[in-house]
Amino acid sequence: MIVEMVTGADVKKVDDVVQKAKSLGFQVQLNLGTDKVVVAILGGHTGQVSTDTFAVLPGVESVTRIMKPYKLASREFKAENSLVSAGGVEIGGKRVVVMAGPCTIENEEQLMKVAKAVKESGASVLRGGAFKPRTSPFSFQGLEEAGLRLLAQARENLGIPVITEVVDPHDVKLIARYADILQVGSRNMQNFTLLTNIGRSKLPVLLKRGFSCTITEWLTAADYLLAEGNTRVILGERGIRTFEDSIRFSLDISAIPVIKRFSHLPVIVDPSHAAGHYSLVPAIARAAVAAGADGLLIEVHPNPKEALVDGLQALTFSDFARLMAELRQIAQSVGRYL
Amino acid sequence: MIVEMVTGADVKKVDDVVQKAKSLGFQVQLNLGTDKVVVAILGGHTGQVSTDTFAVLPGVESVTRIMKPYKLASREFKAENSLVSAGGVEIGGKRVVVMAGPCTIENEEQLMKVAKAVKESGASVLRGGAFKPRTSPFSFQGLEEAGLRLLAQARENLGIPVITEVVDPHDVKLIARYADILQVGSRNMQNFTLLTNIGRSKLPVLLKRGFSCTITEWLTAADYLLAEGNTRVILGERGIRTFEDSIRFSLDISAIPVIKRFSHLPVIVDPSHAAGHYSLVPAIARAAVAAGADGLLIEVHPNPKEALVDGLQALTFSDFARLMAELRQIAQSVGRYL
Amino acid sequence: MIVEMVTGADVKKVDDVVQKAKSLGFQVQLNLGTDKVVVAILGGHTGQVSTDTFAVLPGVESVTRIMKPYKLASREFKAENSLVSAGGVEIGGKRVVVMAGPCTIENEEQLMKVAKAVKESGASVLRGGAFKPRTSPFSFQGLEEAGLRLLAQARENLGIPVITEVVDPHDVKLIARYADILQVGSRNMQNFTLLTNIGRSKLPVLLKRGFSCTITEWLTAADYLLAEGNTRVILGERGIRTFEDSIRFSLDISAIPVIKRFSHLPVIVDPSHAAGHYSLVPAIARAAVAAGADGLLIEVHPNPKEALVDGLQALTFSDFARLMAELRQIAQSVGRYL
Amino acid sequence: MIVEMVTGADVKKVDDVVQKAKSLGFQVQLNLGTDKVVVAILGGHTGQVSTDTFAVLPGVESVTRIMKPYKLASREFKAENSLVSAGGVEIGGKRVVVMAGPCTIENEEQLMKVAKAVKESGASVLRGGAFKPRTSPFSFQGLEEAGLRLLAQARENLGIPVITEVVDPHDVKLIARYADILQVGSRNMQNFTLLTNIGRSKLPVLLKRGFSCTITEWLTAADYLLAEGNTRVILGERGIRTFEDSIRFSLDISAIPVIKRFSHLPVIVDPSHAAGHYSLVPAIARAAVAAGADGLLIEVHPNPKEALVDGLQALTFSDFARLMAELRQIAQSVGRYL
Repeated sequence: MIVEMVTGADVKKVDDVVQKAKSLGFQVQLNLGTDKVVVAILGGHTGQVSTDTFAVLPGVESVTRIMKPYKLASREFKAENSLVSAGGVEIGGKRVVVMAGPCTIENEEQLMKVAKAVKESGASVLRGGAFKPRTSPFSFQGLEEAGLRLLAQARENLGIPVITEVVDPHDVKLIARYADILQVGSRNMQNFTLLTNIGRSKLPVLLKRGFSCTITEWLTAADYLLAEGNTRVILGERGIRTFEDSIRFSLDISAIPVIKRFSHLPVIVDPSHAAGHYSLVPAIARAAVAAGADGLLIEVHPNPKEALVDGLQALTFSDFARLMAELRQIAQSVGRYL
Repeated sequence: MIVEMVTGADVKKVDDVVQKAKSLGFQVQLNLGTDKVVVAILGGHTGQVSTDTFAVLPGVESVTRIMKPYKLASREFKAENSLVSAGGVEIGGKRVVVMAGPCTIENEEQLMKVAKAVKESGASVLRGGAFKPRTSPFSFQGLEEAGLRLLAQARENLGIPVITEVVDPHDVKLIARYADILQVGSRNMQNFTLLTNIGRSKLPVLLKRGFSCTITEWLTAADYLLAEGNTRVILGERGIRTFEDSIRFSLDISAIPVIKRFSHLPVIVDPSHAAGHYSLVPAIARAAVAAGADGLLIEVHPNPKEALVDGLQALTFSDFARLMAELRQIAQSVGRYL
Repeated sequence: MIVEMVTGADVKKVDDVVQKAKSLGFQVQLNLGTDKVVVAILGGHTGQVSTDTFAVLPGVESVTRIMKPYKLASREFKAENSLVSAGGVEIGGKRVVVMAGPCTIENEEQLMKVAKAVKESGASVLRGGAFKPRTSPFSFQGLEEAGLRLLAQARENLGIPVITEVVDPHDVKLIARYADILQVGSRNMQNFTLLTNIGRSKLPVLLKRGFSCTITEWLTAADYLLAEGNTRVILGERGIRTFEDSIRFSLDISAIPVIKRFSHLPVIVDPSHAAGHYSLVPAIARAAVAAGADGLLIEVHPNPKEALVDGLQALTFSDFARLMAELRQIAQSVGRYL
Repeated sequence: MIVEMVTGADVKKVDDVVQKAKSLGFQVQLNLGTDKVVVAILGGHTGQVSTDTFAVLPGVESVTRIMKPYKLASREFKAENSLVSAGGVEIGGKRVVVMAGPCTIENEEQLMKVAKAVKESGASVLRGGAFKPRTSPFSFQGLEEAGLRLLAQARENLGIPVITEVVDPHDVKLIARYADILQVGSRNMQNFTLLTNIGRSKLPVLLKRGFSCTITEWLTAADYLLAEGNTRVILGERGIRTFEDSIRFSLDISAIPVIKRFSHLPVIVDPSHAAGHYSLVPAIARAAVAAGADGLLIEVHPNPKEALVDGLQALTFSDFARLMAELRQIAQSVGRYL
């Protein structure tokens, strides 16, 4: 951590900073500049100390973090890529893993049709929401446990692993009985009670990025899962909130190389929630694979016009099949396969 | 809702939109423009129907919402201002209500000192965190129930109502035993399980704005509380995430007149979390009162240099006393009092 | 345009809206909803009238635009893709056009080396800055006309067309003597004097997106060029300002399919300015081609360590050659070539 | 500047950083941490050197700026507040200076009416646009020089100084013949040719903040004016672009205390352009004065319903008079006057 003193700060104030750092077990080095004194605070765990600890002291102008606040999710902690195994599928390897299915499970017929169709087109994981966090209390909130049972049935019938969202920290055990991968939605990325409970479950988990959280905050949230000993963490980029209004959320394509640079965790992309409109999904999906994403999460519906939730962003079966063919080409061109 | 058809959409497609609207119980009026057909869908509950319902139909270019998605929080639903009573204090009236105290309860001595000091300076509610949602798992997470007990003790000793945050939906009952007002933090504004549980408790609640949520989303989240029959809802603006990096969050000062225009609920402002730095707190607090805020939530600490959490944004006792004197002047100049 | 009246607006107020619309030559249709009156204002040029014209009238709650404010840049105005020819190169066709070179022209040796290297690797246009808009007055501002002469010399020696930036509206003629394509930088996207002058010149122009401008504003700025009769307009996405701090600007990958949907103009991507760091350039460049971009603008430097400006984002010759090989694969996988 | 090396960077790489710094005339201090080497680069003009200079060197992980990139606008350069005199009015003193008038000058009658009304209500400067930067080429672009002549006439008749916008760098002399204060609009904050020309003119200038520029960029743009010897610079906050859609631009209220902390220049606030709607103007104006703004820029129109440009944000004469009365109270409560 680098502490910049105000111009003309006296020796006593500089010494207070030094003493504070030493009391926390850090090493200190003073830089007596021509204009300003700068104190460098050194040690392996400075990333876990708040900058406020020093910023609040008299005579301090600013405090800059050198070490990142996350630790377990960092590449410095673990240099090689992590592979996450879930229901027989490996995420983070050469294969680009496509997870597809309806936004919301509506009934048996709908789910089975979609499951069959996406599997035939090459998806390796079935997605489907049973507990839905909806922005309005007057919207359909999901089939809840009945939906989970349908999901488990599809898994059994088709031999495809399933992923579904957890919203209540006390539902982790319930959902774990039915699903192969737990999903933490964007609005819950910093629901730390939920993260701790899922961390303890040790189950594979897809941690979606909060739509206004930085990558640093996202990896720090992943530390909540990893700190409980759960190493099967997959990151999910799903678009961030910006001023642009032609799309629901702006997909942060650079998140992929940034994550690959700073973390060992696999990262997948959800083009459907970012786009909000089916016509934009294919271009974003292709871009994600070209940029190095380890997988995709795509919404598919037998009849988007009749979907209860988010029909506009769902692909039809034929659209999905066509997209999978395109993605196969892109994957190959970057040395991977679908 | 206004459905704009693509240029040249045929009669069949327009008719599909009309039939869909009628099947949902809406009235329809056709606008046969020179370039485009526009279908107006009318009825009191169109705000509760997703725009996707129509956007997904063939031949539709765009769908625009006229009715707001929130209902119970709107001024159209209730024209006069709501007054929220909590522990003998009324929020939303002529008095500007100041809630002050430490970010985090650290120990008995710290809390009692602050409680006494803020009460003497004119604060009407004591704030203090016992369950802390921290971005890093390696940070101090609060005293939990022991903290609540200290809070209740301060309330008894000084006769001042208290506010504290709930993070786990299953802790509502526990916290209700100790606190007069429950606080929903920014990161939980769309934790719908939590909102529903607090709604059922019927307890006074401060709903802080998600730091990247629009005012429309905020009022829609308030509907979750109101829909359960809890009418004692206070809104709390605490800064939004923008590109500006000289401050932790940019306080959205216009949220105050916007809320006053579209909602009947009282709104207070938290300058401390927005600023992140004590030197910016007074100017923002003054601005909030001048703009018409019904109250403030301010962090105060006996010795910010030693604070366990967020010390940089806390005011000292003397800073707080000076600010209260300034706020009294401002309140008077807008026809209110402190 | 759709005008929503406040609940209970009287007949007189509705009539004022109707008369105003008719006075501007529009057709009007009234929608008498159960809760509100909604006035639809119809006609081909409503996009060119400000919403304020109606919003300011008493009894109006809100005004919503149906027609887009841009016209000449829209696909409704011209359905087929525009091809832009410049210096023998065609932008917007099957070939993905790569424009590469140094951020800033430093001297003859540097420029000639880069020009030769990028041409050999397959770039079809040479880029190089002579007039540099720098955020600080104390930074190097470019070689100005001497730089232009070097650029023209490289063009002659190597037979490669060149692109360079114009910053002063009164320099258009000067720069036109040396360059094949004029570039309007991000900070000048809404410098309307500059746009008008370039429009009149009828020269090929790359209009970079303002880093905080919506796609609608970008296409409306393109209308400034097109309205002067200059049809050789290329759009350039170069990243937008968001809260994310791991990258200089967040590249808006969805801008590509959005532009393709709403406009006939070709669009290219500048991964270098978005990334700000060479390590992120290849992933973004690959994503852009996969998403359907018509070209790329990439910074290359013989020795980035010694670059006078923006060295951190420049690729070395070998990095650039490797990236071009990757891009060739991606282009092929989406049915194009490099 | 603080250069952080990657973990395990060898001595040679650290030495390259040291040599580079020394070659630029800086002092260097090495911090040999347990995990990383950190190089502190010291000297009064490090703020004027790009971080890229070091970031591009092999083995460098990140470079952090300690010195701000602006210099002449900083409080470290000049400790006491600057007072700007223009047309007999002093900006930055005890008086809160209100500049008011129409967005656009439409004709003699309109301008004279407004000028008289705002002067009577206590405005000290008349504003009025003659050259208008409009987002669409199909919108009214202003009366140009004819408008300037009307402005000068109002000044003469009423003895009130006037402010108007310059958009073309080559119009500075023309406009200087008619106006007391030149205005640089938000879209031109980084039009460096324009800034340099205005800097050379030495005329009082209001530099509006780019709607997506940080305060650091804003003060760096002010350095362009100051570097030419023009010390009569006034800053103008007018709202920034955020995700919030209930207002045109979110007024950054914290910009006021931040500017006061880091710069000696006076700062005024434009609530009209931020709000975009007359109903939000008074609350924002009151907040600005309470936060410490040195002045306001407010749009007033005799008949907003008939305004050619931005009528929705203009106040009527009676609204403006009422607001001035409110502002007088607020100014007094913070120890100033109107």
